[in-house]
Amino acid sequence: MTDQTDTPPLASPDTFPDALALAADIRHRRRSAVTTVTAAIAAIEVRDARINSVTRIFGPRAVAEAETIDRRIAAGEDPGPLAGVPFGVKDLFDVTDEVTTAGSIVLRESRPATRDATVVARLRGAGAIPLASLNMDEFAYGFATDNAHYGITRNPHDLTRLAGGSSGGSAASVAAGLLPFTLGSDTNGSIRVPAALCGVWGLKPTYGTVPHDGAYPFAASLDVVGPFAGTLSDLRVVYDIMRGAPMAELPRLSDLRVARLGGWFAQNVTAPLAGAIDAVAAHFAAHAGDCPTVELPEVARARAASFVITAAEGGTLHLPRLRRHAMQYDPATRDRLMAGALLPASTVLQAHRFRTWFRERVHALFRSADVLIAPATVGEAPLIDQPTILVDGQPVSARANLGLYTQPLSLAGVPILSAPLAASGGLPLGIQLIAAPGREAALFAVAAALHDAGLAGRVPLPQKAPQKAAQKAGGQ
Amino acid sequence: MTDQTDTPPLASPDTFPDALALAADIRHRRRSAVTTVTAAIAAIEVRDARINSVTRIFGPRAVAEAETIDRRIAAGEDPGPLAGVPFGVKDLFDVTDEVTTAGSIVLRESRPATRDATVVARLRGAGAIPLASLNMDEFAYGFATDNAHYGITRNPHDLTRLAGGSSGGSAASVAAGLLPFTLGSDTNGSIRVPAALCGVWGLKPTYGTVPHDGAYPFAASLDVVGPFAGTLSDLRVVYDIMRGAPMAELPRLSDLRVARLGGWFAQNVTAPLAGAIDAVAAHFAAHAGDCPTVELPEVARARAASFVITAAEGGTLHLPRLRRHAMQYDPATRDRLMAGALLPASTVLQAHRFRTWFRERVHALFRSADVLIAPATVGEAPLIDQPTILVDGQPVSARANLGLYTQPLSLAGVPILSAPLAASGGLPLGIQLIAAPGREAALFAVAAALHDAGLAGRVPLPQKAPQKAAQKAGGQ
Repeated sequence: MTDQTDTPPLASPDTFPDALALAADIRHRRRSAVTTVTAAIAAIEVRDARINSVTRIFGPRAVAEAETIDRRIAAGEDPGPLAGVPFGVKDLFDVTDEVTTAGSIVLRESRPATRDATVVARLRGAGAIPLASLNMDEFAYGFATDNAHYGITRNPHDLTRLAGGSSGGSAASVAAGLLPFTLGSDTNGSIRVPAALCGVWGLKPTYGTVPHDGAYPFAASLDVVGPFAGTLSDLRVVYDIMRGAPMAELPRLSDLRVARLGGWFAQNVTAPLAGAIDAVAAHFAAHAGDCPTVELPEVARARAASFVITAAEGGTLHLPRLRRHAMQYDPATRDRLMAGALLPASTVLQAHRFRTWFRERVHALFRSADVLIAPATVGEAPLIDQPTILVDGQPVSARANLGLYTQPLSLAGVPILSAPLAASGGLPLGIQLIAAPGREAALFAVAAALHDAGLAGRVPLPQKAPQKAAQKAGGQ
Repeated sequence: MTDQTDTPPLASPDTFPDALALAADIRHRRRSAVTTVTAAIAAIEVRDARINSVTRIFGPRAVAEAETIDRRIAAGEDPGPLAGVPFGVKDLFDVTDEVTTAGSIVLRESRPATRDATVVARLRGAGAIPLASLNMDEFAYGFATDNAHYGITRNPHDLTRLAGGSSGGSAASVAAGLLPFTLGSDTNGSIRVPAALCGVWGLKPTYGTVPHDGAYPFAASLDVVGPFAGTLSDLRVVYDIMRGAPMAELPRLSDLRVARLGGWFAQNVTAPLAGAIDAVAAHFAAHAGDCPTVELPEVARARAASFVITAAEGGTLHLPRLRRHAMQYDPATRDRLMAGALLPASTVLQAHRFRTWFRERVHALFRSADVLIAPATVGEAPLIDQPTILVDGQPVSARANLGLYTQPLSLAGVPILSAPLAASGGLPLGIQLIAAPGREAALFAVAAALHDAGLAGRVPLPQKAPQKAAQKAGGQ
């Protein structure tokens, strides 16, 4: 072991440093990688029991990797920009020697991965340490992270509420301060929805620009992998490493045209979220010249097309396994995959034809705007005991419908940053910042402006309420 | 009318000049555009009665356009590289003010096209004159050009035989010397098959590189439009104009590695064609250093995937119309389109997943070869009265199976030149020359080498035999 200064365990989320600060501390030997990793393990063991965001801790190997990092730093080497920083991955990313379950028991007996998913390898190459796999809806099919095999992930802000999904463990572990950053995947909103409900930053990069190899697929024509983080600068550095190239310089806010999406994206929004979005729009109207409302046509069809393509591609992927092991599937997933596998091709091809048309309509908006603003969900996280949201006045399944505003946009493959709104005491709320393909830098510029104005930022955990709420709800 | 030297009508195919020679004659006023067009109309009126390659002659407008060309030449203007050259289009290309039937009566009541298909507009911009629409299998679904509404197109080399399809009118009209070049489309082999059976040159360009706008679609993920011509230089100039950019300089033969496809592509080939391909391979072995035999895996599955994708995309395209007007469809087309529209999505998506895999296998061959050689069909054109070919010793429908060697390759989107073999007295036979995407220049270099060696070239029409054969078969 190397000579090292010890620091307190990462017990309180409010004192948990962000990834870049952690890496700086470790690089300058103010804190060792080993203590960092062991403290994170301890925090998960103690504090995740109620939340259930973590499915497995890669303890011994993570400590061994931390020891290597500490040795390399002691030897004067540069072990990378995120050296010693632990992170977690939604349990659909391959991590060498670990079984990738994709949230199922169907894959539990699979052989361990023989190599890391490309994005995991890139983060490991930057010195970061994979510490845990994180809970998800089975095979990423859902917006609830309510998993029949691995349990439900509770929202750290209120343990009686959903964390959202399908990357719920990834969002909740960052929100709870258990890990500084995590990886998730987004097919219909699985990064954006839980990021919003848990009050952290999330990024769905441009389709096709971040390697998907070694991430268990769901609907290949929609799947995108991306990061969650507690700070915008962490989100950016992790995204850069995942993509394998630094981002373009951020444009100046004064050079960006910001607009808000109306129509479909203004209906069903709860009053607090609508008010918060008004405040965001007013800020850009005041500081960026204007913030007009623009509309997309046929959004309901776009959402339907997303449903159809997802069900068909997911169903086709799983069909051979469903034929043999249907009863091992989570019922909520199985029935939809089976239905998807039985869809007629004409329906799916028509959805793809519509997709081509709709994508053009989305791109047309970017001729007059650089960044679009839309709500991420209708409002705060639904109650676990009452997992519904109100759409057109009717309560509908949260698992199937939390993606009301995220699904239609998935069709277009555009980059979307999920920004947590700096709520005043309430539960987290989030917005989507949307740009043209490859224009992630514009998203980061707008997000930074919102953060600097005090309008967006990781939502701090309440200090006592969740504990009470958890007891009220029966704890875990 | 301008001052002009008259020339004999284009009565005999053997004296019919190629497009570039015609254009030079017209440009230098050795022949007028008007005489050229009127002679072509006369030749079609007289000689196409037996062949039935032409469905409509755009007479008055073509003559008017020819008059304009002659006036511009007389005024010293440059009216383009193909000025005054008449051409024909498979009846799925939009020609301004004409109804595009796509070989059906379902579309017969449609409104006339309000503008030319892009490739037609480009050729018109080069001075060429659209003179006729050409027969095809209904909606391009078939390899026979046996159309329930517009009749069968007979092979000019033997009127008792099929011309092949679905662009049969395009191939037969060039073979008969009625038009110097024509346009067709190729989804599963609809340019390559009739080019081979009619003894003319045909090109299926790289998928996506020649605009498809204004060409009636069939299976959008496979559809490619391309030219037929009597000479290789005509084929090249027409392709350049269709693509809108001149081709890269042709590589030297000594810089190209040529290989032949074995396995699937060596089975079921008739003895004369197998012998001809041996001669071609021997030529390259002698003059290009080597001509090894290489193999593609899973070709039967590739063909099945092509069938599935075609049926599903075609069925989806036609489903709304089939629901209303099913009985107006050609029975041979209708039933396959209906079956295609009923395919389960999982089958189609699996075909697409296989396609991705197979495309990689095709590309892998191009690491060790620049041009691959394969037969275009199993052998000569089938008899109309007995429209079958032998596959694995069994007679199977020519309409459905003439694409045995063309369909699997369609999956990969690669450019393929259909080269007519210079047969010694027999019926035409053809081969496919196949290159990596965008490497059309390599195809033209290899084709030119074959032509220069006397191994490939437009097959001249027999002078008497076909008449007898036609009478024997009942003629018309």
